[in-house]
Amino acid sequence: MAIAASRISQPLTTDLARVEDELALVGQEAGPVLHEAIRHHLSTGGKRIRPRIALLAGRMLLGQAPDDLVHFAVVTELVHAASLVHDDTIDEAGTRRGEPTVDSRFGSHISVLVGDYLFAQAAIITAGLGSLRLMSLLAATIQALVRGELRQMSAAYKIEASAANYESRISDKSASLFVLAAEGAAVLAGVPEEEVIALRRYGQQLGLAFQIADDVLDYTGSEDVLGKPAGSDLANGVVTLPAFHYLRTLPADAPERRIVEEGGEATRVVEAIRASHAPAYALGRARALARDAVTALDAFPLSPSREALASVGEETVRRLS
Amino acid sequence: MAIAASRISQPLTTDLARVEDELALVGQEAGPVLHEAIRHHLSTGGKRIRPRIALLAGRMLLGQAPDDLVHFAVVTELVHAASLVHDDTIDEAGTRRGEPTVDSRFGSHISVLVGDYLFAQAAIITAGLGSLRLMSLLAATIQALVRGELRQMSAAYKIEASAANYESRISDKSASLFVLAAEGAAVLAGVPEEEVIALRRYGQQLGLAFQIADDVLDYTGSEDVLGKPAGSDLANGVVTLPAFHYLRTLPADAPERRIVEEGGEATRVVEAIRASHAPAYALGRARALARDAVTALDAFPLSPSREALASVGEETVRRLS
Repeated sequence: MAIAASRISQPLTTDLARVEDELALVGQEAGPVLHEAIRHHLSTGGKRIRPRIALLAGRMLLGQAPDDLVHFAVVTELVHAASLVHDDTIDEAGTRRGEPTVDSRFGSHISVLVGDYLFAQAAIITAGLGSLRLMSLLAATIQALVRGELRQMSAAYKIEASAANYESRISDKSASLFVLAAEGAAVLAGVPEEEVIALRRYGQQLGLAFQIADDVLDYTGSEDVLGKPAGSDLANGVVTLPAFHYLRTLPADAPERRIVEEGGEATRVVEAIRASHAPAYALGRARALARDAVTALDAFPLSPSREALASVGEETVRRLS
Repeated sequence: MAIAASRISQPLTTDLARVEDELALVGQEAGPVLHEAIRHHLSTGGKRIRPRIALLAGRMLLGQAPDDLVHFAVVTELVHAASLVHDDTIDEAGTRRGEPTVDSRFGSHISVLVGDYLFAQAAIITAGLGSLRLMSLLAATIQALVRGELRQMSAAYKIEASAANYESRISDKSASLFVLAAEGAAVLAGVPEEEVIALRRYGQQLGLAFQIADDVLDYTGSEDVLGKPAGSDLANGVVTLPAFHYLRTLPADAPERRIVEEGGEATRVVEAIRASHAPAYALGRARALARDAVTALDAFPLSPSREALASVGEETVRRLS
């Protein structure tokens, strides 16, 4: 594994540097304000996990990263960025990853436009890649992101509704982008349909695992790591797996349930969830999904890129241990 | 002309009814809230001028309106709608065409999502039409709309800056959608490049004429017709051709200039502009552009559809007389 990792890490680093170079130019032609706002968002952290997946999947299938694959990796980050910027506009979020959001620093006017611009830029690049199927996948991804945000809004502060739509919600809001990255790379590579399906499954399961892991971290992480106070989700009415798993064990008239559903001060409830079995339960679920994602890679011959894709799956849950 | 009009109006009415049927279904799969918000926006007036242009241009080239042309006509209305909904979100506009905006009735949360959803739906339909060139045109249109809104924001309350960027601003904000409709129909029809260029020119010049006419109407129209008070543009800092043409004739220290640049109560300035030669001057400019648009149609043999496209150009400025 160590050899495989070193054999793959150097080319991946080079690919990612190309992605960064392309990202740095996005918005340049739209004038200084938009460019600065886009730079501000794209340069505040972010692990580029979606471009990584696209690049590794493409390398696994093609043995190299042609220009089109790099462009496509850029697309995955742009769509993710557009979605985050609009989410922050909707939530009027003040910070993200410990930095001011585009909304709070440049105002919601610019924030709406930045998101639109990034979605359109993703579409322009994709149209240049010459695959209508990829284009359809991109458009379907954007609609899934919208649906996911709607599902989250409709279930806010509602324990049962949140439990009922959790999987479809995180599938739409998070897994959709991992699917775009993994399946998109396969579509671009023009591989047989069963390989497209295998990579789609990898993306779907990994995306679900990633989001559940994120939702656990919101309870178990330190403010330092999270860039926001632990328990922020609940404070904003977003009831995730650790929360509803715990809350459903309580009687219908438990004060904790009332606090969550009435949007009260939730610090004590967050503490109770953190101290409960719920984070470990959710972690177990994330692990199983990540394993399933890795299993989907069995459809491909062993290679350093396949190993690296498997590592992405393992890292997703390892950060929780 | 009367014969031509009746020969074309019946099929166009049928085509437009198909467009309405498709529009009515948009957002249905995204749940009741989004669907209702989309219905609310799409059913409040709107002359469907962009779908009309797409349908007439397609009929002129193909002699009929195949399903794909109808789908594309729907796309032009969806992009227009998405752009209006996001503009209203940005401007926190209370009413549009005399009805509450999506932003004011459903909140900015829903309003951001409705715009995203409509842009994505336009992309999904376009991807299904099988032309990457059309896809690129759509994405470029969305970016132009963003650029236009930015230009408008950057020049707000500034007379000289508004004069300097007026044509590029209305080209991006308005003509881009007319270009999408006219050029897009040509791309879809697969006609030779010179015909694509001719229809692009028709769309561009007509779009500019349309916007200038709209900007004149903002001064000369009654509140009844406009669905908002006359002079709304100036009250919101949007300095259009009638305004800067008039204001530039005044000395640098004229109180009217100061009122506009400081965002003061503008009723008196609006009256002065309305009473000046500026609206007639702007109307002359719109007429010349509309004539130029009609001239671009000379590239095509005479037909009822060509006559109808020419009428759209003439109507654009006739509503001002």
